Amino acid sequence: MGVVCALAVSPALAQTDPLASWNDGPAKQAIVGFVERVTDKEGKDYVAPEDRIATFDNDGTLWVEQPIYVQLAFALDRVKALAPEHPEWKDKQPFKAVLEGDMKTVAASGEKGVAELVMATHAGMTPAEFQKIVSDWLATAKDKRFKRGYTKLVYQPMLELLSYLRDNGFTTYIVSGGGIEFVRNFSEPVYGIPPAQVVGSSIKTKYEVVDGKPTLIRLPEMNFVNDKTGKPIGINQHIGQRPIAAFGNSDGDYQMLDWITSGEGPRFGLIVHHTDAEREYAYDRDSKVGRLDKALTDAPQKGWVVVDMKNDWKQVFPPEE
Amino acid sequence: MGVVCALAVSPALAQTDPLASWNDGPAKQAIVGFVERVTDKEGKDYVAPEDRIATFDNDGTLWVEQPIYVQLAFALDRVKALAPEHPEWKDKQPFKAVLEGDMKTVAASGEKGVAELVMATHAGMTPAEFQKIVSDWLATAKDKRFKRGYTKLVYQPMLELLSYLRDNGFTTYIVSGGGIEFVRNFSEPVYGIPPAQVVGSSIKTKYEVVDGKPTLIRLPEMNFVNDKTGKPIGINQHIGQRPIAAFGNSDGDYQMLDWITSGEGPRFGLIVHHTDAEREYAYDRDSKVGRLDKALTDAPQKGWVVVDMKNDWKQVFPPEE
Repeated sequence: MGVVCALAVSPALAQTDPLASWNDGPAKQAIVGFVERVTDKEGKDYVAPEDRIATFDNDGTLWVEQPIYVQLAFALDRVKALAPEHPEWKDKQPFKAVLEGDMKTVAASGEKGVAELVMATHAGMTPAEFQKIVSDWLATAKDKRFKRGYTKLVYQPMLELLSYLRDNGFTTYIVSGGGIEFVRNFSEPVYGIPPAQVVGSSIKTKYEVVDGKPTLIRLPEMNFVNDKTGKPIGINQHIGQRPIAAFGNSDGDYQMLDWITSGEGPRFGLIVHHTDAEREYAYDRDSKVGRLDKALTDAPQKGWVVVDMKNDWKQVFPPEE
Repeated sequence: MGVVCALAVSPALAQTDPLASWNDGPAKQAIVGFVERVTDKEGKDYVAPEDRIATFDNDGTLWVEQPIYVQLAFALDRVKALAPEHPEWKDKQPFKAVLEGDMKTVAASGEKGVAELVMATHAGMTPAEFQKIVSDWLATAKDKRFKRGYTKLVYQPMLELLSYLRDNGFTTYIVSGGGIEFVRNFSEPVYGIPPAQVVGSSIKTKYEVVDGKPTLIRLPEMNFVNDKTGKPIGINQHIGQRPIAAFGNSDGDYQMLDWITSGEGPRFGLIVHHTDAEREYAYDRDSKVGRLDKALTDAPQKGWVVVDMKNDWKQVFPPEE
């Protein structure tokens, strides 16, 4: 009844570096050291796989956020696309400014103006219809400077880091100030992160039976702002436990980093510092988008690793296809 | 460099029935038929594993909800435990009634009264502190009729169903009208469902730095009611895609069942009908707790499977230890 099999095991392959786009500096060493400690069953810092949860900010941590957030670029393009159905926008700010390409006036409209643009372009449809609109846009829209689609403006070293963590038993989440249903659209194909592992800001949704069909409809009303103090709250709500590692790039990630790295046991916090004007952008304390000030100041005392993009990353973006 | 190994494969074991506590009736056949169809790679109804998502109501679907919801029993016990710190409760309804064991007055206080009891017992601590309180209570509290702890009043056939679905590549979620952080406390050890796969009602949480430590604090304010129309909304928010199978037992699950089973492709909806006064309870259209009326009426036309607890289940609860 026994079956005898002959298994030919191939010669050991030269071990390839899972973090090949990282230079061998302190940031890479800290990452590898942490992962080795929490996966060492004999060590005092061992963490069971179900507790190996890592959260990643999206804008500026996994993909480019300059000169404006990608989701704002989407909203601006949608205003232009929807303008024929809204003749009143020609005379109504901040829509008028968007249609005239007057970004100064758009910026001057502040958070309130941006919220108006978001509500006008993100609500009034089902989640599935919204996903289709986002997909179609991502498939064609291109960043002006890099002449690439936005899903190709993700950071190659961070893609490697996501895979490296998952290969070591981690579950990886995105925890974004951006819209949860916007990010879910591309999180699986681009980052290998399924929709259920995306936490983000959201607008309200209502349930309605339309022509006998149960339907969800996105409403032009804010539900939850998943930024700053909202990040730990959103994580607790979605994940239900405190992660052990957090990755961000701005002061909007401060509370997430602080809450996660102040838990008991081994903890890891990392900040991507944008120091590379040539290959990407250089900005921190004075930036309007992705301002990094307090988190940069406090990083040493908090024990957070600061990635110097220029020196720590061999390559910023994935190779051209 | 090749390694030759001899693997002794043991004789094929007699296939054990993964749904051993289910009688071989139409409900069991429908379950097995659905799972076989969606996992058959050659069949027209094949569903990729990442889309095999099943949602389960908790109260009355996975564990007992009579004569009162377990979470209400918890709140009542907590009022008694906290009474020494709240001398004012002796003269304040509905607290007074709880302390006097006057359940008629508690019931008469309605939703508003129950909400007061919940806020007074569920808020004012960190999520971790709340988990500890719930754990300690679950470890000692016992149901009066069955003389068992509540986590032993789960339905053995449903535990088998959860495992059977997971063994067939499904991801199983709880989608409860109960508190998300209450259910998360026991979902992993009792149902094999990790905290992140629990969707439920919630109170608000605030983030605060207390004595230099980032802290989450549960607030006595409702955040989201995950019941009725709230269930599809909560599912969309947490999971980000429409599941393909839904399991419930009351009209509170109607919209979840309706939304899930009206999607495209193969779908499955199931209602546990409590028909067994001897081994558990018998109730439906006239029950105050877990009322099952419209969903029972509409089940045939919607194609939802109705489990007749008395005839479909060989055994209701897990064996005594």
